[in-house]
Amino acid sequence: MANVIERPLDLLNNSKGKEVIVQLKNDRQFSGVLKAFDIHINIVLDNAKEMLNGELKRNYGPTFLRGDTIIFISPA
Amino acid sequence: MANVIERPLDLLNNSKGKEVIVQLKNDRQFSGVLKAFDIHINIVLDNAKEMLNGELKRNYGPTFLRGDTIIFISPA
Amino acid sequence: MANVIERPLDLLNNSKGKEVIVQLKNDRQFSGVLKAFDIHINIVLDNAKEMLNGELKRNYGPTFLRGDTIIFISPA
Amino acid sequence: MANVIERPLDLLNNSKGKEVIVQLKNDRQFSGVLKAFDIHINIVLDNAKEMLNGELKRNYGPTFLRGDTIIFISPA
Amino acid sequence: MANVIERPLDLLNNSKGKEVIVQLKNDRQFSGVLKAFDIHINIVLDNAKEMLNGELKRNYGPTFLRGDTIIFISPA
Amino acid sequence: MANVIERPLDLLNNSKGKEVIVQLKNDRQFSGVLKAFDIHINIVLDNAKEMLNGELKRNYGPTFLRGDTIIFISPA
Amino acid sequence: MANVIERPLDLLNNSKGKEVIVQLKNDRQFSGVLKAFDIHINIVLDNAKEMLNGELKRNYGPTFLRGDTIIFISPA
Repeated sequence: MANVIERPLDLLNNSKGKEVIVQLKNDRQFSGVLKAFDIHINIVLDNAKEMLNGELKRNYGPTFLRGDTIIFISPA
Repeated sequence: MANVIERPLDLLNNSKGKEVIVQLKNDRQFSGVLKAFDIHINIVLDNAKEMLNGELKRNYGPTFLRGDTIIFISPA
Repeated sequence: MANVIERPLDLLNNSKGKEVIVQLKNDRQFSGVLKAFDIHINIVLDNAKEMLNGELKRNYGPTFLRGDTIIFISPA
Repeated sequence: MANVIERPLDLLNNSKGKEVIVQLKNDRQFSGVLKAFDIHINIVLDNAKEMLNGELKRNYGPTFLRGDTIIFISPA
Repeated sequence: MANVIERPLDLLNNSKGKEVIVQLKNDRQFSGVLKAFDIHINIVLDNAKEMLNGELKRNYGPTFLRGDTIIFISPA
Repeated sequence: MANVIERPLDLLNNSKGKEVIVQLKNDRQFSGVLKAFDIHINIVLDNAKEMLNGELKRNYGPTFLRGDTIIFISPA
Repeated sequence: MANVIERPLDLLNNSKGKEVIVQLKNDRQFSGVLKAFDIHINIVLDNAKEMLNGELKRNYGPTFLRGDTIIFISPA
């Protein structure tokens, strides 16, 4: 973590433009490039890929993910 | 993504008038033309089609979808 | 959609006095005439009919439906 | 609906002192006389009867029902 | 209901110092003497007894119950 | 209850520094010494013990418990 | 607990830069070094490890965990 993380959203800010893994409730997982987020943790991923139990389920282009379904977000 | 995405709602704004896929909790999926959205992510789709496990379940006309049941929205 | 839909609630406003289908969480569905709604998407239907898996379960008269149980609302 | 319903709570206001059916999440249903409600849809029923799958489960006297467990309320 | 019930919380106010039944989500039920409540319907019961499917599960002394797990409260 | 309980949080205040039982959703139960709480009912227990179905599952030291997973709190 | 805990968040503040265990809803557990938290209990862990039923499931680097999925946080 090259940049200082003072608040949780700092990690998301540092991850803009980079590949992230997003775990949703109900075992869905997305990977993609983090384009934007807001304080509700609504996010937009570019080149989003939906994974289910580790296998690619479907390719999406840019995708809006609603914050209240997100469990965690981690830079890939 | 031709238009710049600074905030998550920018993607929805760019998608107005275009076909989108809307994933709901409980495996329901809708496709349709995004007509409107608000900050709660309540949306209106025109020519809404309800899909269940990849098969057309029912055609609706314009449909109001309540934001708190939405997992993700992606331009088709 | 004869009337312009700028915000999601515009569709509900246009649907007042008309037959709508209301999908609730847990597979319950209501049809009836939309009489009123508020910003929480609490609604009142007149001549409400409760459907379960496509079959009429029970006739109600006017019925208050609490917004947080609603998935979608569509003019019939 | 003899009285005009402009907002959803108007139906509850018109139903004060009358028998109503209250459907809760998890298949519980109450009937009783609506004595009071507030904007959270917390309500008080008098002579409350709890029904489960159409059969009387238990008689209560006055009962406070918390709004967030309510699906719908209909005059009997 | 000897005292007038104008708002739902009036019933709780009238029940202070009296035995009440409290139904929680997930089939848990408590009985005890209502000592205090607040607008979130957080309550304190004295001599609280936890019931599960009609049988005494455990005696507690004074117990704080968080409002968002409560379905209904009824004077015993 | 030696001290007067006027509001539900008074019971928690009286229980500071004492052993309490904390029931969480999903059948988890903690016991420990109540060190702190806030209006969201977030709490800190010292010498926290996690119990599952009445058996000790694991010893923790000080533990932060998020309020929205708590069903009830009772002095041991 | 060397430092005084007056409010629940004090424990999180004392744990910054230290290894913690984070229990999520749905039996997921993370361990890692607590880097940041906010009032929603959104947190960032460094060197996050996801555990499922006591076994290492996957190593992550820095990870943002959304507060509303957290049950408890305990210094390791």
